[in-house]
Amino acid sequence: MTVKPIKIIEKSDMADIALGGAFLGTGGGGDPYIGKLMAERAIEEHGPVRVLDIDEMDDDALIIPVAMMGAPTVMLEKLPKGTEAANALGALEAYLGQKADAIFCIEAGGLNSTIPVAVAAAAKLPIIDGDGMGRAFPELQMVSMTMEGMKATPMVMADDKGNSIVINAVDNLATEKFARVATIEMGGAALIALYPMTGRDAKKGILRGSMSLIKSIGRIIESEQKANRNPVDALASELNGLRLFEGRVQDVDRRTEGGFARGSCQLRGLGADEGDSITLEFQNEFLLARRADGQPLAMTPDLICLLDLETGQPITTEQIRYGFRVIVFGLPSDPKWRSKNGLELVGPKYFGYELDYQPIETLNGRA
Amino acid sequence: MTVKPIKIIEKSDMADIALGGAFLGTGGGGDPYIGKLMAERAIEEHGPVRVLDIDEMDDDALIIPVAMMGAPTVMLEKLPKGTEAANALGALEAYLGQKADAIFCIEAGGLNSTIPVAVAAAAKLPIIDGDGMGRAFPELQMVSMTMEGMKATPMVMADDKGNSIVINAVDNLATEKFARVATIEMGGAALIALYPMTGRDAKKGILRGSMSLIKSIGRIIESEQKANRNPVDALASELNGLRLFEGRVQDVDRRTEGGFARGSCQLRGLGADEGDSITLEFQNEFLLARRADGQPLAMTPDLICLLDLETGQPITTEQIRYGFRVIVFGLPSDPKWRSKNGLELVGPKYFGYELDYQPIETLNGRA
Repeated sequence: MTVKPIKIIEKSDMADIALGGAFLGTGGGGDPYIGKLMAERAIEEHGPVRVLDIDEMDDDALIIPVAMMGAPTVMLEKLPKGTEAANALGALEAYLGQKADAIFCIEAGGLNSTIPVAVAAAAKLPIIDGDGMGRAFPELQMVSMTMEGMKATPMVMADDKGNSIVINAVDNLATEKFARVATIEMGGAALIALYPMTGRDAKKGILRGSMSLIKSIGRIIESEQKANRNPVDALASELNGLRLFEGRVQDVDRRTEGGFARGSCQLRGLGADEGDSITLEFQNEFLLARRADGQPLAMTPDLICLLDLETGQPITTEQIRYGFRVIVFGLPSDPKWRSKNGLELVGPKYFGYELDYQPIETLNGRA
Repeated sequence: MTVKPIKIIEKSDMADIALGGAFLGTGGGGDPYIGKLMAERAIEEHGPVRVLDIDEMDDDALIIPVAMMGAPTVMLEKLPKGTEAANALGALEAYLGQKADAIFCIEAGGLNSTIPVAVAAAAKLPIIDGDGMGRAFPELQMVSMTMEGMKATPMVMADDKGNSIVINAVDNLATEKFARVATIEMGGAALIALYPMTGRDAKKGILRGSMSLIKSIGRIIESEQKANRNPVDALASELNGLRLFEGRVQDVDRRTEGGFARGSCQLRGLGADEGDSITLEFQNEFLLARRADGQPLAMTPDLICLLDLETGQPITTEQIRYGFRVIVFGLPSDPKWRSKNGLELVGPKYFGYELDYQPIETLNGRA
């Protein structure tokens, strides 16, 4: 896919970005509708946001990612006021004694690709064309920066009541654990600022071009929807993706547990998949798709996206309902995640599945 | 009791202070033996610690309490290295951008009356003759400073691994909740620095003379022990206390739950109490003593102390074992705790007992 680099985010871009973010969010990363509204409002008030390639930043520039943390289920009921993320940013700047030069998205997602745009607009800062995952993952140490030895701390968390916390932990897994219990205590969702990094480190540590890719994906989905076509075929050909399964949601088992939305859903096949059924397992994000006989179709870190069968609209794990007719779509992950270090961070075994990682291409007879 | 104000804490004072702290710790506040060793070592290395009356401090002086937080059960297995408390102090000073002028004990206890002495010695700072409870309580908002509207935050927590957290919360109860989940994540015990206060505020907010009182109590226990007398009678007459019950431990139900040592123990009467039995309920500290017929003998905020029947040695809630022969000793709490505000913070209802507070003097026919 030829992705055209974006240089600016206008209010009119937010629909695409929210949609593309939700698609790469693989079921997590929050609801795109709320994120879109927040960012649109911020751009309306403060003006559009410049998008910079990381190579345009000074080596000594300070880049700060902001995000929402928590179970997406909770986020739906606990809308961010829009000021908490700015508070988290401000508290981290105050702690560091230094102002941010640019904002960054830690992951793709309906909220986590849009909240940073809102924060950047309000702070009159540019946003970097990149992210830390190339998708969404449930835990904060699961970013490319961890693979480069970069620390998530000092990390600031803020909630809607005015509470805030600064964490300094010995490693990023410890930071995740402290932040997770604090998130639960904050009512299940928190706004965070973390992984403060220099331009120099970001050039090594981040995944590049994510904002532009998200925008392009959103564009495809929207234009196909407008032409009354399901965007799945266009996405498959543009992204080297696979249409894995088509079916109807038979059963959803979802619980908010340990600060995550965990669970699974069963799909009964439709069309060419009539007679088959598969299960999707998730922890905020979809992590594993397998057939009734146990044979996996796709597994983390490869992307498993759920789309509405009619409209191609991305469906998040908290939105799934009985009876939904859906397409399961798979995408190869960034090659970094398929390395030994990458699989230790986000491979199937980390999440408790007794499976050796197999690329989605292998599992589906492409390689 | 005429308490002689102490002006300095030498190494040779630590045995008394640890003992007196454990007595007023009412079962909580940590093991006196470990605290004594830590403070003795620190005084040996850095010299004795000056004790100041709060009125000797400038109004603008910065006073910082340090303490250990967590279930005493865990503290027994997870000895502080002695540097974590100093780390917590240093991190709070760095956060405030100001050095402490004096150290303070947040509560009485075997560890929490001695760790601050060790920190003061290492930091070459004086310690204030006072504390925030006049005893020990299980939760950090339960201090006289809360009654004066003073904030526990910014609060720093540090563990033995090198993790640290700064909390800024909207009120002291919220601070307690965040700090408690972080304590659990730190392995059940953490070193904390909190309630940073000016001399001006401390003059209004603290309970005065606690270090001197603790030292005097420790002195009585030790000299009675040396004379082969149980210190209970001397303590009762000096402190206006009551010998509530004498018995043998029949049953102990103790669990580490939500970051606390919670439970109860049953005592079967000996001597004059032969034929009776009572139950002591605790959450780190003893909170309620009642007879088999449900009639209370003493309840929080009044002090319930458990002493060895032979030696008068204070017994903490994590030390109680089947078969121990003990005396239950009661003391009226500081009058501040008996006010409406005080009882809201630490009265029996806060801890879930469906009882209206009745003073220990009333319950035992003294008033």
